[in-house]
Amino acid sequence: MDKITIIYSEEPDLNKPILIEGLPGVGNVGKLAAEHLLDQLKAKKFAEIYSAHFPPQVMLDDDGIVKLVNNELYYSKADGKHPDLIIIVGDYQGLTPEGQYELSSSVLEIAKKFNVSLMFTLGGYGVGKMVESPRVLGAATSKELVEEMTAKGVVFSKGEPGSGIVGASGLLLGLGKIAGQNAVCLMGETSGYFVDPKGAEAVLRILASILNVEIDFSELESKAEQIDLITSKLKEIENPVEPKREDLGYIG
Amino acid sequence: MDKITIIYSEEPDLNKPILIEGLPGVGNVGKLAAEHLLDQLKAKKFAEIYSAHFPPQVMLDDDGIVKLVNNELYYSKADGKHPDLIIIVGDYQGLTPEGQYELSSSVLEIAKKFNVSLMFTLGGYGVGKMVESPRVLGAATSKELVEEMTAKGVVFSKGEPGSGIVGASGLLLGLGKIAGQNAVCLMGETSGYFVDPKGAEAVLRILASILNVEIDFSELESKAEQIDLITSKLKEIENPVEPKREDLGYIG
Amino acid sequence: MDKITIIYSEEPDLNKPILIEGLPGVGNVGKLAAEHLLDQLKAKKFAEIYSAHFPPQVMLDDDGIVKLVNNELYYSKADGKHPDLIIIVGDYQGLTPEGQYELSSSVLEIAKKFNVSLMFTLGGYGVGKMVESPRVLGAATSKELVEEMTAKGVVFSKGEPGSGIVGASGLLLGLGKIAGQNAVCLMGETSGYFVDPKGAEAVLRILASILNVEIDFSELESKAEQIDLITSKLKEIENPVEPKREDLGYIG
Amino acid sequence: MDKITIIYSEEPDLNKPILIEGLPGVGNVGKLAAEHLLDQLKAKKFAEIYSAHFPPQVMLDDDGIVKLVNNELYYSKADGKHPDLIIIVGDYQGLTPEGQYELSSSVLEIAKKFNVSLMFTLGGYGVGKMVESPRVLGAATSKELVEEMTAKGVVFSKGEPGSGIVGASGLLLGLGKIAGQNAVCLMGETSGYFVDPKGAEAVLRILASILNVEIDFSELESKAEQIDLITSKLKEIENPVEPKREDLGYIG
Repeated sequence: MDKITIIYSEEPDLNKPILIEGLPGVGNVGKLAAEHLLDQLKAKKFAEIYSAHFPPQVMLDDDGIVKLVNNELYYSKADGKHPDLIIIVGDYQGLTPEGQYELSSSVLEIAKKFNVSLMFTLGGYGVGKMVESPRVLGAATSKELVEEMTAKGVVFSKGEPGSGIVGASGLLLGLGKIAGQNAVCLMGETSGYFVDPKGAEAVLRILASILNVEIDFSELESKAEQIDLITSKLKEIENPVEPKREDLGYIG
Repeated sequence: MDKITIIYSEEPDLNKPILIEGLPGVGNVGKLAAEHLLDQLKAKKFAEIYSAHFPPQVMLDDDGIVKLVNNELYYSKADGKHPDLIIIVGDYQGLTPEGQYELSSSVLEIAKKFNVSLMFTLGGYGVGKMVESPRVLGAATSKELVEEMTAKGVVFSKGEPGSGIVGASGLLLGLGKIAGQNAVCLMGETSGYFVDPKGAEAVLRILASILNVEIDFSELESKAEQIDLITSKLKEIENPVEPKREDLGYIG
Repeated sequence: MDKITIIYSEEPDLNKPILIEGLPGVGNVGKLAAEHLLDQLKAKKFAEIYSAHFPPQVMLDDDGIVKLVNNELYYSKADGKHPDLIIIVGDYQGLTPEGQYELSSSVLEIAKKFNVSLMFTLGGYGVGKMVESPRVLGAATSKELVEEMTAKGVVFSKGEPGSGIVGASGLLLGLGKIAGQNAVCLMGETSGYFVDPKGAEAVLRILASILNVEIDFSELESKAEQIDLITSKLKEIENPVEPKREDLGYIG
Repeated sequence: MDKITIIYSEEPDLNKPILIEGLPGVGNVGKLAAEHLLDQLKAKKFAEIYSAHFPPQVMLDDDGIVKLVNNELYYSKADGKHPDLIIIVGDYQGLTPEGQYELSSSVLEIAKKFNVSLMFTLGGYGVGKMVESPRVLGAATSKELVEEMTAKGVVFSKGEPGSGIVGASGLLLGLGKIAGQNAVCLMGETSGYFVDPKGAEAVLRILASILNVEIDFSELESKAEQIDLITSKLKEIENPVEPKREDLGYIG
């Protein structure tokens, strides 16, 4: 078998779509944000990426039917307000550096095939402590995009994240820049210790405003409240030593 | 050398055979079940799979003759009751995720070559505690198969195994589903701490009933009694802290 | 994508250039020396090496623009005193042995393409204790080069480094010798515990004298003083057990 | 570059030579034995195997000249008593399972190219305790060879080594058997804790008698005495808990 197989169930006709990536990472911020977006848009699945760079594993649905771990591509047609969108979500990122490079290269080929005008990669920025009001930090492939995103409320902060961006969220920008593909990474601040719907909400609020999508955040907010409840209870029980900030990189 | 080499000593003429896989995994349940089945059927070896994805290791037989570690294919012709069967057993699964994908893809090619109508993958489902009467859980590539297997006593339990199925037993279904190959995974409950002939017996009893094969279970039962003896002695000596259930995934 | 991609922004016309490699390693001695050299020469970047053998990571500049991790090639034209020079610096070495081999082979192909007459690889030699006046040890692809370099003050000391030279600094010589490419490795003694500008200065002083380049060392000296300050303060605070010398190999 | 490169300095004309492999492994028994053999025979180097499966490392000779880590092939022409011989020694075995398979396949291709009649692989069998009079255990590709070797004093002991033979010494037999290449593995008993010239001597005594080579063992004996001296001194100082035998496999 090839290392990567893309299976299209449909080849949607899209007009200069914007591609959004939200794969597992720090606090699962990017994954939560992208999944909430595609739920809200009732986006339609049109392709699946299978790869020997993912774990050799199947997941089971409620009926006991297997699904090989994969990444999935959804689309949402323009509705007069927002443009055509492609959304990539998935169970895993590539397990090895080489796998990461090959998978991100595949996504870039898909972006080219559909004439993608701009990519957003979504992730978390682990800061090692609880965050009340998470900022959304940014990175981009060009100065013009940095300026445009700054105007939308994205924070470009010199030296943050200091260790750069690891994983698909970074690689799509790095490889994209070389290939001439415009791209922006949005990183929601997160402790990095929990799945973090609050960080996801922060990222998605900015993205929704950029894309001109209307989002009902009540579900994410309710998840965030549950996590807040758990963490405040944990705080009562134990007063743990706070991990050092420099131990936490960004993996997105 | 190629990463995978299949050497046929014979090319049996089989009529829509059913393929059964039993490779090492949790409690070696699948391997024990498949090996007992091929012993009982006096199945005949017809091919060997060698691979650079296995350890660089030879085993020795009682005479001191080496055998490179491999997977082996056996067949048993229909006897009026059971259909034509192919059974895959072996010393090892692939050492890396990529190796797992390539080896399972090879098995699917073999399945296609012999026009296999249905695959059964056998494994253990580690539950982290001693099991008196192991259930046989299932997973399948289609709803029809789930219904058919439920009627045969296989348990399809929502959320079990929660972490999906890792290894050849899962991958053959995951890749099989994509390739249009019908397949069922049968997982015998097992503590996961010991080689478990009791779990293997549970799996094989259901499989034998499905395949209409008559099996003498006395050997497996005697092995199970030996294991029971050892574990009850161990319990007397030490009263170990029971490992948490969520620590145990399924590797099949 | 290919495992290694070289992107030329310019194809400089060079006359039998000398190639200098300074990638991350023990004490970052080689990287510091090569970067200081290219700063002093105001060398011009002409090519970038990207590779799936590097981490899947982007770095951010002060504006928030991403840069995929890479190795970079600079050149400096002969100025009547020093010959044409190519300088290779970078963020990372290959992550795996295979990656190391493939990347060093790529550099040798570049050396061939530009008709490189001699290569210098720069690195640190970790000795496990603070070094007042670091020696510069050498290794080379031929006896003639050993003699030539000895005359320039490079120390060729039997049994040092005892474990050989690991990484690009060694591999370029090892592969170079096979390919008929003359090459010398210069290793500055360093404790191996800190980034070591003093070791870098020692290496660069000898290299500058060989290449007939004039270097202003004040910046490296100032960095060295800062490190000295930090280490002397650390000595006051704690009197650590000195690690054994044999624990430290050379990775260059 | 290719993963494996073989460079011939000479293509000796050999008549059905016997190939002997002695690479690093348990107690370095095989390496010591093969190196002593080629010293005694004044065998001549004719080829070098370089590979990205070895560490990215060079060794230095006494003059400071680099040598990329490799495996080396020597030959010794028949002298009326012993037949034509090829001897393989080296710094390292392949670092990964795949590397091991590819390197052993390369050696088998060399064996075929030179029409090798029989291969001997030399190794150590780690027993986890000091051994006064090491036995030489064997494994072979055929029953005829087992009988022949038993007659020469090689011990074929059911269940030893229980975990099979790992590494080149095993793989050359395993792959050789499939390729129709006769081969024998000779394993000298060794504690596994030290480089063991005594185990090497035991292996080489039997091999020399099989090949009809005259060997002066004084150098190996003197090395063995030195090791004995060191170990007896260590025994005096500390009385360590003896490691369990089952912890020690054979890697050869």
